[in-house]
Amino acid sequence: MRALFVSVLACLMACATAQTFQRLGGCPDLGCIFPPDQVDFLAGQFFDIRLEVHSPINGSEARVGEPDPNFSFTISKKGGNAVSATEQDISALVLTLLRRPELTRTDLFAQDAEKPSLVNVTAKAYRRVALYEPGDYEATLTYYGTQKTVANWHVRDLPTKRRAKNVILFIGDGMTTNMITAARLMAHRSINGKYMTKMALDKFPVLGHQMTHSMDSFITDSANSATALYTGHKSTVNALNVYVDSSKDPFDDPKFEIITEIFRRHFPHSGVGIVTTAFLADATPAALTAHTSKRSELDHVISAYYDGGVNNLNWTNWDGPDVVLGTGAENFLQTKDAPRDYYKLFSEKGYNVAWNNTAMQNAPSDEKLLGVFQTSNLALWLDRNIYKENLNNQSNYPDGSDRDATDLPGLKEMTLKAIDVLQERHDDEGWFLMSEAASIDKQMHTLDYDRALGELLELDDTVRATIEKLQSLGQLEDTLILVTADHGHGFDVTGSVDTKYMNAHHDDRDKRRSIGNYRESGLSQYTVDGPDALQYSDGVHFPARWDPRYTLHSGVVAFPDHRENYQVHSEGPRLPADEVKGKKDDFYVSYKDAVTGFLINGTLPVDADQGVHSLTDVPVFAQGPCQELFGGVYNSIDIFFHIAECLGLSETQGRAAESCAAQGVKA
Amino acid sequence: MRALFVSVLACLMACATAQTFQRLGGCPDLGCIFPPDQVDFLAGQFFDIRLEVHSPINGSEARVGEPDPNFSFTISKKGGNAVSATEQDISALVLTLLRRPELTRTDLFAQDAEKPSLVNVTAKAYRRVALYEPGDYEATLTYYGTQKTVANWHVRDLPTKRRAKNVILFIGDGMTTNMITAARLMAHRSINGKYMTKMALDKFPVLGHQMTHSMDSFITDSANSATALYTGHKSTVNALNVYVDSSKDPFDDPKFEIITEIFRRHFPHSGVGIVTTAFLADATPAALTAHTSKRSELDHVISAYYDGGVNNLNWTNWDGPDVVLGTGAENFLQTKDAPRDYYKLFSEKGYNVAWNNTAMQNAPSDEKLLGVFQTSNLALWLDRNIYKENLNNQSNYPDGSDRDATDLPGLKEMTLKAIDVLQERHDDEGWFLMSEAASIDKQMHTLDYDRALGELLELDDTVRATIEKLQSLGQLEDTLILVTADHGHGFDVTGSVDTKYMNAHHDDRDKRRSIGNYRESGLSQYTVDGPDALQYSDGVHFPARWDPRYTLHSGVVAFPDHRENYQVHSEGPRLPADEVKGKKDDFYVSYKDAVTGFLINGTLPVDADQGVHSLTDVPVFAQGPCQELFGGVYNSIDIFFHIAECLGLSETQGRAAESCAAQGVKA
Repeated sequence: MRALFVSVLACLMACATAQTFQRLGGCPDLGCIFPPDQVDFLAGQFFDIRLEVHSPINGSEARVGEPDPNFSFTISKKGGNAVSATEQDISALVLTLLRRPELTRTDLFAQDAEKPSLVNVTAKAYRRVALYEPGDYEATLTYYGTQKTVANWHVRDLPTKRRAKNVILFIGDGMTTNMITAARLMAHRSINGKYMTKMALDKFPVLGHQMTHSMDSFITDSANSATALYTGHKSTVNALNVYVDSSKDPFDDPKFEIITEIFRRHFPHSGVGIVTTAFLADATPAALTAHTSKRSELDHVISAYYDGGVNNLNWTNWDGPDVVLGTGAENFLQTKDAPRDYYKLFSEKGYNVAWNNTAMQNAPSDEKLLGVFQTSNLALWLDRNIYKENLNNQSNYPDGSDRDATDLPGLKEMTLKAIDVLQERHDDEGWFLMSEAASIDKQMHTLDYDRALGELLELDDTVRATIEKLQSLGQLEDTLILVTADHGHGFDVTGSVDTKYMNAHHDDRDKRRSIGNYRESGLSQYTVDGPDALQYSDGVHFPARWDPRYTLHSGVVAFPDHRENYQVHSEGPRLPADEVKGKKDDFYVSYKDAVTGFLINGTLPVDADQGVHSLTDVPVFAQGPCQELFGGVYNSIDIFFHIAECLGLSETQGRAAESCAAQGVKA
Repeated sequence: MRALFVSVLACLMACATAQTFQRLGGCPDLGCIFPPDQVDFLAGQFFDIRLEVHSPINGSEARVGEPDPNFSFTISKKGGNAVSATEQDISALVLTLLRRPELTRTDLFAQDAEKPSLVNVTAKAYRRVALYEPGDYEATLTYYGTQKTVANWHVRDLPTKRRAKNVILFIGDGMTTNMITAARLMAHRSINGKYMTKMALDKFPVLGHQMTHSMDSFITDSANSATALYTGHKSTVNALNVYVDSSKDPFDDPKFEIITEIFRRHFPHSGVGIVTTAFLADATPAALTAHTSKRSELDHVISAYYDGGVNNLNWTNWDGPDVVLGTGAENFLQTKDAPRDYYKLFSEKGYNVAWNNTAMQNAPSDEKLLGVFQTSNLALWLDRNIYKENLNNQSNYPDGSDRDATDLPGLKEMTLKAIDVLQERHDDEGWFLMSEAASIDKQMHTLDYDRALGELLELDDTVRATIEKLQSLGQLEDTLILVTADHGHGFDVTGSVDTKYMNAHHDDRDKRRSIGNYRESGLSQYTVDGPDALQYSDGVHFPARWDPRYTLHSGVVAFPDHRENYQVHSEGPRLPADEVKGKKDDFYVSYKDAVTGFLINGTLPVDADQGVHSLTDVPVFAQGPCQELFGGVYNSIDIFFHIAECLGLSETQGRAAESCAAQGVKA
C-alpha cells in the first residue's frame, strides 16, 4: 500500500422523521464508501478511497456503542476475485465526537429547536489508487459483523488513441439556452423572423445538453459542477475535486484526479491555461488545480495554481498551469492573514506578472504568464464598454494601492493572449485551456440581466475571435472547442416593456400595464440603428443601444424582495435587496434600486439578497475533433470522459507501482 | 394568371413617435409585399401573393391623397430578367376606411387617449403561384411613381430524393429543456448523481434548438409557431398558414401551402394523422389543415379537417386526414350557431366516429377514424390516473349530453391507434402523423406545474411506446421521429420546499424559510418507494408519489397575482387568479388557491389571469432517416424544410400551368 491514512470522526446528521433524514452524501446506510456507489472512472485516473462506519447517537437509527473499528473492505471485478483491503495496516483509530451542524439539509423543525443529530464515526483512507482494466467493480464494506455497504464502480472502456491536439473549454457560468436566446434578440437584427447575423454559438455543428445536478442535491453550485466537468466525478456543493467526508478538515477528503493533472502526467510537455473574469480563487477556475471540501479556502486555491498542488499528500505532482489570467488581487497580496506574496513567488518561478492589459499584451508569449488585473471580479463588459464612468473610484488596482484599475482586458483579450502563450510554448504536445465568462452567473444572481447578457455576448464574441485565431494559427482542425455552462439560472424573457409608460405612472398596478406580451412584445428595439446607436467594430455583435424605450420583460423564477423597472442600471451593477437596518439576514427591497418600477415580493427565504441557481440542463456546443461525442443528452461527468477520450488519456495498462490491479486494489 | 383577387382596404396602424410606430408585419414602408422580405420557399410550394400600398391619414407619415392604385410589381431571379406582373388585369379598386384597432402593439398613451392611427390601403392578390427553380429572387413593388418596396425571396436548393417513408412529429406544446429536466427529476431515480433510468427523450441521438419567434413579435403563440413548423413560413400571432394583411376578412389573407397539403399532392396515397390532447379546433392541430388569420374561427378549422379545405379559393385540394383524435366536442355538435353536425358529416364520408377509448380501440384500423372524447381539452394525466375523482361531475360527454366522459384515452393510446390506422392504410406511400401534448402549455399557463409535468411525462411515455410500436411493425428504420415544442414558458426549478414547515407557519416571511436551495435542495422525494408509493406498470416512468413532504420549488418568470404553496392541486386543475368582483379585467390572487402558501404579486398586466409564453429556444430531438439535419441551432422554419426534404417534397421542375417560371411570375 502506497498510502494509508486513518481518520476517525464523528459527524452531525439530520434527525427527525425518516422522510426528512438526510445522510452524508454517498452514505446509503451506516457504512460509507468514497467514491460511492454508481461512480465511473477513467482508466488509470488516480483517486483516494475513504471508508466510514457510523454510529448515530440519537435519531431514528440511534444505537449503543462505538462505530465498528474492525470493518473490512474488498474490491472485486465482476467475474474476478475479491481482494481484501483490510489486510493492510490500520495505524490508529480514535473516536471523537464532533458537531457538524451544516452537513446537509437538516430538518427545519429540529433546527428551530436546536436539536442536532449526532453520530460517531470510524474512518480509514487509502491514497492515490487507480483502476486500469475497464469493466464493473464491486466495492464492499463489511461492518458490525454482517452489515454490508456496496458501491458499484465502473471503469469506462474508452479508445486510447489521442484525437485532439488542443482543447478549449469555454464555460459560461450559469448560462442557459434561455439566456442565449435573449442575447441573440438584443444583439442580432432580424427581418420578418429571419436573423441577418448569428451568434457564434449558433454556428456550432453539434449540440448537447448536460445534467448539472450534484451527487446529493439537485441544485449544484459552481465548485461541485466544475468538479464534475473536470474530473468525471460529481460531488457535493462547495467541494473541489474531493468527496466530502464527515471530517471537518477541508483538506483530508478523498480526492480524485483532475483533467489538468492527468493531461500533464500523460504528456509532460503539454500546456495548461486558465482564464476567467472572476476573482481567480473562485470555484470554476479553482477546480482545475485545487482539492478541498471548502471552496472558501482561497489561499489553498492560489497555492495550487502556484505549484500544481505538490503539497497534496501523496498525489499527482505537476508544475501548475502555464498561463493564469483573471482578477481577485486580494488573494495574491501579502497581508497579516496571508503571509505569502504570490506575485513574488510566481515571478521567482518564471512567470511574467501583468497588472493591466498593456502589460499582458506586451508579455512575451514564450514565457509563463500570470495576469491579475484588479481586486474582486473583473469589471463587467457593460461598464468597461458603455458606462465607463463606473470604473472610476473603485480603488481596485491589483497592486493593493488605492488606484483605479482602468486598463483592463476583457475575456476576449485574455483568451487570445492565453492561446498565444500556450501555442508558442506547447506546439508539440498540445494544450488545454479553460476560459470562463464568470459574471453571467454573478449578474444573474443580482437580477442585473443587462449586465449578465452583456457578459454572454462577450463570451460569444470571444468564441468567434478564438475560432478566427485558431484558423490563423493553423490549429483549428486540431482543436476541440467546447462551450457549455456549469448550471443554470431560471431566466427567461416574456415580452417587452414600454418604459416611458411605466415611468409616467405611479400606481404599481398601472405600471404593470406597460408590459406587452405575444403580439404586443413587438420586435427587438435593442438593434435599431440611429444617431444614438453605439458604434462597435465591424462584425462584432452587441446591442446598438442598451436603453431603448421598449425593453425586455425579463425575470428569473426565484428572487428576493425587489423592485423591477426593466431598465438598464447605468449607474453601476445592481443590488436589488438590502438588509433591514438592525436585522441580520432579513432582506427587503432596496430603496435605491429600480425606483420607477413596481414591487415584487420574494419567493426565497428572507435571508436571500439575490437569486439562486436552477435545475435546468444546460447546452453544450462542440466543434472539432471528437465533436460527435457531444450530441444528445448526457450527464455533466460525460464532458470529462469525452475530453479525456479525445486527448487519449484512458490508460488501460496500469503501472504496477501505483495501481489497483485488474482484480482488486493493490496499493 | 390563374387567379386574380383584388381587395382594397384601409387599416389602422399605430401612431405616436417613430420609436413606437409599429407597422403591419411585413410592411417595411408604405408598400407591402406578402410573402415579405427574407422569406424562404420550398421549391414548388404554392403560395398567394398580396400587394398593398398605404396612405396614412394621420401620424408621422400622414399624406394627402388616395393610396396609389397604379402600383406595379415584378419578380426577377437574381441574374435573370424582371417580369412585370402588373400587366395583368386589375378588376376593381375601391377605397374604404376601416378601423382595425388590434393591429399590432399600439402606443399605450395613444390607446389611453383613444387616438388611433388611420391608413387607406389599395391591395391586390395573386392566388396559388409557386417558384420552382432554387435560388434568390427579388420581388419589387413600385408605387407613388418612384417609391419601391423590395422583398428578397429564397427558394431552397434541397435534394429531391425521398429518404423517409413515415414522419412522426411530436409537439410538446410549450415544452422547454427546463421542464424536461424537472420531469426527469420527478420520475427517474438517481443514485449519487447518476440516473438509474432515462427519459425516452434522453436517448435520442440528435439534439437541436429551434428559435420560435414570430415574424413581427418575438413572443409567439401556438398558431403562428405551428404555422412555421408545418409550412416554413413565420407569420403573426393568431394566424394559421397565412400572412396577415390589412383586410378584416379572416379568410382572404395570402396563404402558403402546408406540409400535409404538399405531401398528399405529391403522394396521393399517403396518409395523414392528427392527434392532440387539446380541443381539436385548437391552434396546433388546426395548423395542419386550416388557412385563416384568426385561430378563433373554430368552425373553419373543423371544416378544414372534414374536407381538407377544398372550399379555399384556388388552392390545393386534398381530402383531409385519415385519422383525427382529440377532444373539443362542442365544435362538432350541431347548435343554433353551428348548423353543421360534423359527426354526421364525417360519418357519411367514411370515418368511424369514436366517443370513448373503448370505441376507439375497437374501430377497424383499415378505415378512417375520428375520435372526439369529451368537450373542452382532454382531462389531464394527473386527473385521469391519480386524482380520478376529478373526472366526475364534468358533464363533458362528447355527444353533448350531460354525462361524464370517463372512458378516456391518453396521448399514448391515441397515438398508437393513429399509427395502426396509418400503417394499415398507407404502408405503400407512407404517412405523416402529428401528435401533440397540448396541456404542458395549458397547465403551465395556470401555474399548475405538477399537471404540466405529468403531461410531459405522458409525452415521454408516448414516445417510448411509439418507438417500441414502430419496431414491432418493422417501421422504425423508415420513420423519422421528431419531438419538439412550439414555444416555451419561463419555467424552472430552484430548490425544494418543506411543505410541512410551510403549512405549520402563518406569516408569509416565515413560510419562505421552508424553501431550501443548493445543498438544502436535497434529492428528489418524488421517486421514493414506500407503502404509499403509486403503482404503475413496469418500465413506465412516472413519480412514485406526487405529494411528498419535500416538493419542488418551481416557478415561472412572469405571472399574475397568486399564492404559492408548492403543493399538488389534488382537488383539480389550478386557477391561480380571480377577477375582482365587479371589476372586469382586474385579476387578484384567488382566495381559494394554495391557501397555505404565501402571496406573490404579479409581474404581468392586471388583466392577466395566467402566465404567458416565453422567448427561449426550444429543443428538437430527432431519430431516424435524416436525423443529422436536426442538430445544432436553427430557425423553427427549418423543421419544415428538413421534413420536406426528407419526404422528397422539393419540386424543382415546375408544372407550367401553375407555376411562377424560373425567371419570374407566370400565372
